Amino acid sequence: MLSDDEKTKLANRLRRISGQVSAVQRMIDEDEYCVDILMQIAAASGALGKVGQLIFESHVHSCVKNAMVDGNTKERDEKLAELVELFRKYARID
Amino acid sequence: MLSDDEKTKLANRLRRISGQVSAVQRMIDEDEYCVDILMQIAAASGALGKVGQLIFESHVHSCVKNAMVDGNTKERDEKLAELVELFRKYARID
Amino acid sequence: MLSDDEKTKLANRLRRISGQVSAVQRMIDEDEYCVDILMQIAAASGALGKVGQLIFESHVHSCVKNAMVDGNTKERDEKLAELVELFRKYARID
Amino acid sequence: MLSDDEKTKLANRLRRISGQVSAVQRMIDEDEYCVDILMQIAAASGALGKVGQLIFESHVHSCVKNAMVDGNTKERDEKLAELVELFRKYARID
Repeated sequence: MLSDDEKTKLANRLRRISGQVSAVQRMIDEDEYCVDILMQIAAASGALGKVGQLIFESHVHSCVKNAMVDGNTKERDEKLAELVELFRKYARID
Repeated sequence: MLSDDEKTKLANRLRRISGQVSAVQRMIDEDEYCVDILMQIAAASGALGKVGQLIFESHVHSCVKNAMVDGNTKERDEKLAELVELFRKYARID
Repeated sequence: MLSDDEKTKLANRLRRISGQVSAVQRMIDEDEYCVDILMQIAAASGALGKVGQLIFESHVHSCVKNAMVDGNTKERDEKLAELVELFRKYARID
Repeated sequence: MLSDDEKTKLANRLRRISGQVSAVQRMIDEDEYCVDILMQIAAASGALGKVGQLIFESHVHSCVKNAMVDGNTKERDEKLAELVELFRKYARID
């Protein structure tokens, strides 16, 4: 569960990312230089990764922690399997 | 320079990415499960990478190619230096 | 803790990776084509990522799990903080 | 083509990477802590990426440049297609 403070911060970041995606669209429409568009895309992608990192952090320190402390074996194992899956996804392995 | 056909395809992809970013925002607002949000972020990030790949491809086969064929030494060297910079940025080295 | 079976599998993978790194060195010495060398490097890098994924998996299902079940608050929090750090490192964010 | 100076520098880096891969093997054998092993793997992986970056740079400023200046259309197109493929591989898209 994300706190209200975390939500506000994430909303700000996501608003900025939306703006970056719109900027990419506009740059394409206006035939701006490809390399500048690619740099804008890299910026949006980095910002999105940062949002992922923040949510992962919050996830670990709330959901995972709670499942570990209070959950039953099944809930715990589920959380651990999800961590493995997230790692695979985000480390972009295979 | 992107062709009209490429622009249309990219616009479709970017519209979908905007939708994914909005979905992330909505999922956060509605307290959806962090792991689902993280999977949505990974999807948006992958889609953004694909847009980058397409623009890079077009860039290489138009701007870089033209600079190589018609450009002077300075223009050529600029294009090559940009390729190195893009590679560094996208391969996320250091 | 890695099981003997996991250790054998990882040793095989690491032997292969050592071979790939040696191959890169040999290819450089023999002036092989840069693009072939770069593909060999990408292969070694992917193989190394896979070893990381396997160790992470084992880590989560043994060390993290045990700390969650048997550990005290301090041990648990340590494991969780390490997960966040590993995620940041492997997702190559910032 | 890599210069002798570049080759020496790359050889040093590759020797260090071989050492890091051996260290991973030794750490596994000696049951060292998984997180430390994972950090060592991340270091080796980062070092390998840096070698890739250096070879890419040299490739662009020699092979690609030469093909652009002196090559025929077929050679040029080959180089450009390879750049696209390398970008896809290293940016780990799809």
